Order: sequence, then C-alpha cells, then structure tokens
Amino acid sequence: MRIAVLAHESFPDRAKTAVGLLRYGDHEIRAVVDREHAGQRVADLLPDVQDAPIVESMADVPEVDALVIGIAPIGGEFDESWRPDVRAALERGCDVLSGLHDFLEDDAEFVDLAADHGGELRDLRKPPEDLTVAEGTAGEVDARVVTTVGTDCSTGKMTTAFELRDAARERGLDAAVVPTGQTGVAITGWGIVVDRVIADYAAGAVERLVETPAEKDVLFVEGQGAVAHPAYSGVTTSILHGSAPDALVLCHNAGQEVVHGYESFEIPPLPEYVDVYERLSAPVADADVVAGAINTSGMAAAAAERAVAEYADAIDAPATDPVRDGVTDDVLDAVL
Amino acid sequence: MRIAVLAHESFPDRAKTAVGLLRYGDHEIRAVVDREHAGQRVADLLPDVQDAPIVESMADVPEVDALVIGIAPIGGEFDESWRPDVRAALERGCDVLSGLHDFLEDDAEFVDLAADHGGELRDLRKPPEDLTVAEGTAGEVDARVVTTVGTDCSTGKMTTAFELRDAARERGLDAAVVPTGQTGVAITGWGIVVDRVIADYAAGAVERLVETPAEKDVLFVEGQGAVAHPAYSGVTTSILHGSAPDALVLCHNAGQEVVHGYESFEIPPLPEYVDVYERLSAPVADADVVAGAINTSGMAAAAAERAVAEYADAIDAPATDPVRDGVTDDVLDAVL
Repeated sequence: MRIAVLAHESFPDRAKTAVGLLRYGDHEIRAVVDREHAGQRVADLLPDVQDAPIVESMADVPEVDALVIGIAPIGGEFDESWRPDVRAALERGCDVLSGLHDFLEDDAEFVDLAADHGGELRDLRKPPEDLTVAEGTAGEVDARVVTTVGTDCSTGKMTTAFELRDAARERGLDAAVVPTGQTGVAITGWGIVVDRVIADYAAGAVERLVETPAEKDVLFVEGQGAVAHPAYSGVTTSILHGSAPDALVLCHNAGQEVVHGYESFEIPPLPEYVDVYERLSAPVADADVVAGAINTSGMAAAAAERAVAEYADAIDAPATDPVRDGVTDDVLDAVL
Repeated sequence: MRIAVLAHESFPDRAKTAVGLLRYGDHEIRAVVDREHAGQRVADLLPDVQDAPIVESMADVPEVDALVIGIAPIGGEFDESWRPDVRAALERGCDVLSGLHDFLEDDAEFVDLAADHGGELRDLRKPPEDLTVAEGTAGEVDARVVTTVGTDCSTGKMTTAFELRDAARERGLDAAVVPTGQTGVAITGWGIVVDRVIADYAAGAVERLVETPAEKDVLFVEGQGAVAHPAYSGVTTSILHGSAPDALVLCHNAGQEVVHGYESFEIPPLPEYVDVYERLSAPVADADVVAGAINTSGMAAAAAERAVAEYADAIDAPATDPVRDGVTDDVLDAVL
C-alpha cells in the first residue's frame, strides 16, 4: 500500500504512529504531511528509517492509496486543523486510517465524501462486532508465541516486538508481530486495539489475533500495560492469558521506580516482578521470562551498558536495549 | 421498593436472580411470576428466604413499583413468552429491570409503553457512559474492603459477599455488598456489570463502585471469574486491583479440579492459588487471603465437614461453607 502519513507539527517526537510506520511498516510511505517541517525530508530528522519527503498538505502528496493519521494526541481527539487534508484525501478517493478515539465514521462530512469517492474510513480503535469470550485454544497455535510484557505502560513493548520480529527475519524465520494497540495496528494494517474491547472479550480478541497468521515460525505479541499497574492490569492479564505464550520478554525503563502517572505505586523489585508474571501465566501457559528489553534512552553509553548488565542480572536472563544496541544474539537465542 | 419478580418455568433452581432477590435483597417482594408454580408460595419451594405468593402472570400481582426479570438464560436473550407480563407491568406504570444481554431499551414497544405510562426501563448490564480509567484511589476508602475471589467462575463469590455482609450486620457493623455482576446489581439495585465495561475502564468502574457507599464500616466486593481462568482473568484482575482490598476471601467448589467449560486447564493447587492472588494483589493493595468459602452442596454432612477442614488446611486460613453452615465466627473474625 502506498500511503501518506499526517503528522502536523508533531513529527517526529510526538508522532509515534508516523515513526512506527516509517521504521517497521510494510507500506511504501510517499510523504509525511507536517506543515512545520515541510520542505525537509524524513532522513534529515530521523536517520535510520524509511526516507520520504515532508510536505505542507495533501495537495503536495503524490499518488497514494491511503492517508494514515500518524499522531495520537492525549485524549485521542480529532484536531480540526487536519480536516482539509482528510477532506482532500477522501476527494482523491483514498482510504483514511485513524487510531483516534474520535471515530472518522461519526463525522458526517467524511462519511459522505468516502461514499461519493469510493474511499474507506478505517477507525482502527473500533473493535470487530463479532468478538466472543476466549475458548482457551491459543496454546494450540503451531508457531512459537512470544509475548512482550512490561513493568509499566510505555516501556517499549511494541518496539521490542517489532525489533524481535526484524531480528528473527534476519535469521531467515517467518516472523510476525501480533498488534494489540492502535500504533501497532496502524503499522501492520491488522490487529485489534484490545483495551477498547468489552472486558469479557479481551482475552478472546487476543486469542483470535494469535490464531490469525497462518504458518508463521514465530509470533511476537505486543503486550499492553503492566500486571502491577493499578488501572491497566486487567488488559495485561487478558493479553497474557489470551495469547498463551511460550515465552515472555520483560520490558522496562532504566531507572524507573514508580508507576508513571500513579507515583504512589512502586514498581515491584524486578526479580519479584518476573515471578509475578511467571506465576500468573503458569496455569494457562507455562511461559518464563526468557529475556529482557530495557530502554536506556538519555543515558550516556557507559551508564547504558551498566544498566543493561544490571537489568540482565536482576531478571536472570539476557537483556538488551533493542533501540540502542539492537536485538543481541543472546537475547534472540533465548527467545527462539 | 415493592417488586414482582419474573421467573417463568425456572423458579427456583434456574432463577438465580429471583432467589438472590428473595434471600439478600432489600426490596419487598410481593409476588414471583412463574406460570409453572402458580398457586404455590415461595416458602413451599425455598424454606429460608423471604416468602411471597407465586402467580400466573402480572394480572395477579398486587400493586408494585417494579417488575424485575429474575431469570438469566444462557445467552441472555429475551424470551418472547415474557412479553405480555413486561407489557402489563409497563401499562401499570411500573419500572422494569433486566440484566439480560438483550436490552429492553432496544425494544420499540417497551420504549413506547414506558414513555406513555411513566415507567423506566433499566438495563442493568448497560454500563454508565462516563466511565474512565482508574485513578488508583480505591485504597483511600475509609471502610474496610474485602474482595471475594475464586478458583473458577460460579464458586460462590456473590453469595459469599452477601453472607459476609449479613454476618457483619449481625455484629452491628454497617456493611454493604459492592456488586459487579448482573445478579448482584439486580439484588442491590446499584452497581456496574464489570465484564460488560470496556477493558481499559474495568478497574476504573470498580474503583468508582468502591468509592460510592459513604460511611460504611466494611464493604464486601463481589469478585468475578478467576485469575487462572483462560477467558475471564482480565476481569478478575481489574476487580482485584480496582477494589484495592484490605483482605481477600477465596471461594472454591469442593472437589473441583479443572476449569468448568475449559477442562484442559487444571485449577492450580490451592496453596499456589492463594499465593498467586496475594502476589498479584501486593503491588496495588497488600491483601492476604484471610479466609475461605467452599461450596459443599451435594455432599453428605460428614464429607462436607471434612471438605471444609481440608480446605482450611490447604489455604492456611479459617473456612466455611457459608450456605450450609453460615459464616462462622472464626471466618468473620479473620475477615474484619
């Protein structure tokens, strides 16, 4: 699919979906739409991803099949300053994909334009309507299933899943990410935003996802939240049990000691955290934490190296910072 | 509230809501509507609950404020044979309460009748529309919070919560049940059916519930599912963390070894199960399993007594069958 990515005034630092599409997506990205950086190229701002021109508006975008909203502002609302670009994309017959909380399908103008010009509005946060409770069958999937879990939200579970996928592919394996959040769904073009599903069906949604890709060697399931998180642990547990993993990879931000946004809650000591995940997993799928991913962004090289080593010690498994150092051989060996 | 309870051809064994209303509800039940047992009295069929006449149809019901659908058939569908009674109740200006999956509010005839005669349609499974993610504040509630958890679905978590409430009231405490399922909500007239909530908001819904009753001495939160259940563990975890309990009571069916409907999954050994609940709870609320409730229905007295003793041993805490033996002093002491 040839796409343009909308990221007005947010690229690259506040456009997680746009950057994910450039780094991990299988689409051909023909332009990033960002009026602030128009005239530059992606490569000027982000060296290690797919390159593309940055343009002012849809008028400057070459022929594409779809426009993807590449920003996820807090609250997930549609920003009216994006309307002319969405309108222009629909008038060109493009699909528009969005992971916003505000659904495109609830906007009468967009619905009309899509109908008139043959494009499709795809609200990625909207769950399928035929979900059911889990049947407990995910463990029968032939592929090796590896689920990323975390010590908090935003600890790199999605990034780690994609980096593991790419490393496994480099070894010649047929690997895929099973996306459970809006960014992962936008990057891959499939999946279910599990936190948006009715609680009773959350594990069932994950089970369906894990059973979807046929004949893969290995699936990397994107985890959500954290099992010791006061608000999101239910979603975490649904993904843990719904995916019935063979192995777990624990993701952590170096130095973080309390839950982000819930600072009165301490993150449990790492060996204990590993134990909680393994004991919770065991009755449904006997998966151990076989490796760790740690985010050392902002640390100097020596401190980062020390943090990775200490983390590996604490969780008693090989570890890496997958963004800084890539997926190391010992981590990939442990995971596969 | 003066109510009638609809339980056609299902009373008492397949009318969990009706029986719960008679046993634990604060409403005055003026009739049970069951064409199969019409002419008998509740006391003829169930000795130890509020008595009421059993009648053929709404036409035989004395003045009431509401009709409650007291049956929850598998699938939760509305049975068309109930329509004349619901119609008659609405024509009399009564409210109609339902915990069915099929919403009364989606039925045009009922909507019209309610509007014409001033009654209200209350679909108990429908969650409030203004739910949010949990803020992590449930632990600040002044009341002692005791959450019932289980080794499977249908292990008596709701019944145990109500029995504990009644025992605490007998000791002079101001106690309430915090209902999280459709039967509990129907019995108490408030609460949220947590499994029906968007997964991201499930813990937030429970937090709101726990923070609702003012100035209680003790709250008994009705748990759902089981943390080692392949389909429902997410809801269980959301209630565990969202209620931020001070203590847990573990509910179990005597002799049960595998998960009902998921027979390839073994129920973990009881000491291990206690440990999983305590370790999962600890980072959010440091609650121990302080007592156990075991369902020994169908067992002879001697075997039941042995089962209770063995269960107490296994979980290393006082235990009782709250239906057979009531809430014993040692259990209530441990809980309070």
